[in-house]
Amino acid sequence: MTPTQLFEQIRSKQSFLCVGLDADMAKLPAHLCGSQDAIFEFNRAIIDATHHVTVAYKPNTAFYEAHGIQGWRALSETVNYIKSVYPEIMVIADAKRGDIGNTAKMYAKAFFENMNCDAITLSPYMGRDSVEPYLDYLDRWAILLAITSNSGYADLQTIENKETGLQLFEEVLQRSSRWGSANNMMYVVGATRPDYLEAVRRIVPEHFLLVPGVGAQGGSLDDVARLGMNKQCGLLVNSSRGIIYADSGERFAEAARRSAEELQQKMQQMLKRAALI
Amino acid sequence: MTPTQLFEQIRSKQSFLCVGLDADMAKLPAHLCGSQDAIFEFNRAIIDATHHVTVAYKPNTAFYEAHGIQGWRALSETVNYIKSVYPEIMVIADAKRGDIGNTAKMYAKAFFENMNCDAITLSPYMGRDSVEPYLDYLDRWAILLAITSNSGYADLQTIENKETGLQLFEEVLQRSSRWGSANNMMYVVGATRPDYLEAVRRIVPEHFLLVPGVGAQGGSLDDVARLGMNKQCGLLVNSSRGIIYADSGERFAEAARRSAEELQQKMQQMLKRAALI
Repeated sequence: MTPTQLFEQIRSKQSFLCVGLDADMAKLPAHLCGSQDAIFEFNRAIIDATHHVTVAYKPNTAFYEAHGIQGWRALSETVNYIKSVYPEIMVIADAKRGDIGNTAKMYAKAFFENMNCDAITLSPYMGRDSVEPYLDYLDRWAILLAITSNSGYADLQTIENKETGLQLFEEVLQRSSRWGSANNMMYVVGATRPDYLEAVRRIVPEHFLLVPGVGAQGGSLDDVARLGMNKQCGLLVNSSRGIIYADSGERFAEAARRSAEELQQKMQQMLKRAALI
Repeated sequence: MTPTQLFEQIRSKQSFLCVGLDADMAKLPAHLCGSQDAIFEFNRAIIDATHHVTVAYKPNTAFYEAHGIQGWRALSETVNYIKSVYPEIMVIADAKRGDIGNTAKMYAKAFFENMNCDAITLSPYMGRDSVEPYLDYLDRWAILLAITSNSGYADLQTIENKETGLQLFEEVLQRSSRWGSANNMMYVVGATRPDYLEAVRRIVPEHFLLVPGVGAQGGSLDDVARLGMNKQCGLLVNSSRGIIYADSGERFAEAARRSAEELQQKMQQMLKRAALI
């Protein structure tokens, strides 16, 4: 998927919503739990209910790996389902991998070939050769962690480089933005860290940002849009728990639709305000 | 597995060898390739041929994920096989995960419960709450990347903190060593970076280090032992390609045994020199 295609989808759906498919078996509606394929059935219902306002789905691999082979099958079925029924929607494997070159090649094969994901999240800690193998794929994306939404972000990400005066996350942006381009790289910037969005946009004005942390984690959509939006929108704002667990009963999919549509309504206003639609 | 049990195994096998099970389908001996379960069969033959000189096996998850469900099954079968036939040997999931708390819990469940691994490698980029969930498991290990063996290590890991004068990998060691202890944390230190081993040992004198990069990547076992050994050995030196692809024909397992035994012979000398056996 190219940035232009992504922006076209954002304009046509009037939304920059990414839905996180973090299906936790312990939280699935009771009536699904008997099924052999409960996670996939849950995801399919969520996807069918939200696809009209969603530009990207982001399954988090941990939630699937926790269930072993059965979980990996559900992940694979979920990606297949999205790419066959709603091929215009971006699929982001939220995998946060990061390893040496020959291993990175295998992860790229896993997520871009064996599964047909459009993008994968990566940790930048191991540097350039741990990222480049993903950039060899046309129209696929490497999404690097920059400043994350969790409480531990400040343990390392804000350390200031003695030589350049830049904080670690700024070094990540500065250095890695030369490894690829705004056509094949994005960055994770937590919605709980709006203070940093200006710094991020100074270094990578044109890249798309994947922004988790709105909803359950407490980030503000308004702040994110005000500080992070660029001329192609440049934002994918993720909500996971706030949508997929909006209701835990039999009508969970309808509740998810309502929650997703509520977010889309807000996003529509923001896109209008920025004169992007 | 406790550090004492690990050290006992090191003394009884006179070895601190970790064998990396990075089974690449493209490199498997031709006679195995017809089999439905080629990766597991390959691993089992390698394990049976090397267990007497090996204290840890380290399957790299990328090589399994590249083959989807079939690969995940081979990974799971491999871990089961080791833990049922050679339960004294440590199994390290070389997964390099790293995510927020609720996700880290799911990865811990995947590798410590769904699979019975003793340890998992992690990226430190997201900080404390991305590591702590793994430390809640008794006698399991979180192995954090400190200074890695690949060419991109210097992109971020050696950035010097303006405030403390420490390099990023030293900050990782210093900060994270307070999250757990030498009983449940180890660090990855590439054998290709012996210059940094002294700095590592200044900060974490008692922790075990997982050292990849001997063999195909060019690191020196002598340097590693001289600079990194402590009173409980404190080293797990990994070789992957140098052992598992020692020969690509029908006698691959015998060649792997010879390669592993050669390394063990050298390690035995080093353990004797340090008066640990």
